[in-house]
Amino acid sequence: MKEQSRRKFVKSSIGAGLGLSLPATNSAPKELFVHHVYFYLKNPDSAADKAKLIEGLNKLAKVPTIKLVHIGEPAPTTRSVIERSYAVSWLCFFNNLMDEEIYQTHPIHLKFVEEYSALWEKVVVYDSVGPKR
Amino acid sequence: MKEQSRRKFVKSSIGAGLGLSLPATNSAPKELFVHHVYFYLKNPDSAADKAKLIEGLNKLAKVPTIKLVHIGEPAPTTRSVIERSYAVSWLCFFNNLMDEEIYQTHPIHLKFVEEYSALWEKVVVYDSVGPKR
Repeated sequence: MKEQSRRKFVKSSIGAGLGLSLPATNSAPKELFVHHVYFYLKNPDSAADKAKLIEGLNKLAKVPTIKLVHIGEPAPTTRSVIERSYAVSWLCFFNNLMDEEIYQTHPIHLKFVEEYSALWEKVVVYDSVGPKR
Repeated sequence: MKEQSRRKFVKSSIGAGLGLSLPATNSAPKELFVHHVYFYLKNPDSAADKAKLIEGLNKLAKVPTIKLVHIGEPAPTTRSVIERSYAVSWLCFFNNLMDEEIYQTHPIHLKFVEEYSALWEKVVVYDSVGPKR
């Protein structure tokens, strides 16, 4: 709701005084919503479970509101501040909060959770928003 | 010529729909190194300290091996699995581990740590590697 009001404001401020009607979907977003999930497996040493999760994430990547996606595994870097006990990193960019909410309840996402959630012990999620550069 | 076309394709697929400007590189990398840092401030309620850290990160973004950068703050999302007690998210893409190592010891990075590290209580870092999509 807050996001809707904000978008409306951004839209109207862009078109202010110009008599322009700007469709929300075609406007160039100025912000980026970064959704980063770290998966910790129930069987962290199982290469098969990790491969299965990655298979599922490759299906999940089809959700249409995702603008960029990256599937990763811990890098070989080992400084003390680096957390590397997760199994798989799932990074998505969205144009805004609303697109991320569409993703959360999209049938492809619900099916992913249904089919693959038995594999993980926990997930840690970081959602960040900030200006697009 | 063929190589150029491929690079162009890779570039455009990364930035697709995001309006991102990604500098061309000499090689066409197949992997992506994702470096994600979450900063926790000593004074988490200080808007001035947060602004100062973001000022520093904007300088840090000039390190030439960084291929994409995003500076964010916790989104309004609040599900239980979401960690949102950090102050600032710093996300960088590199073409490979070597480029990230160059970044770690680059004079701009060393100066950033020298000038701004008094602001943070801790950092949590996730480095992930995986195929570029």
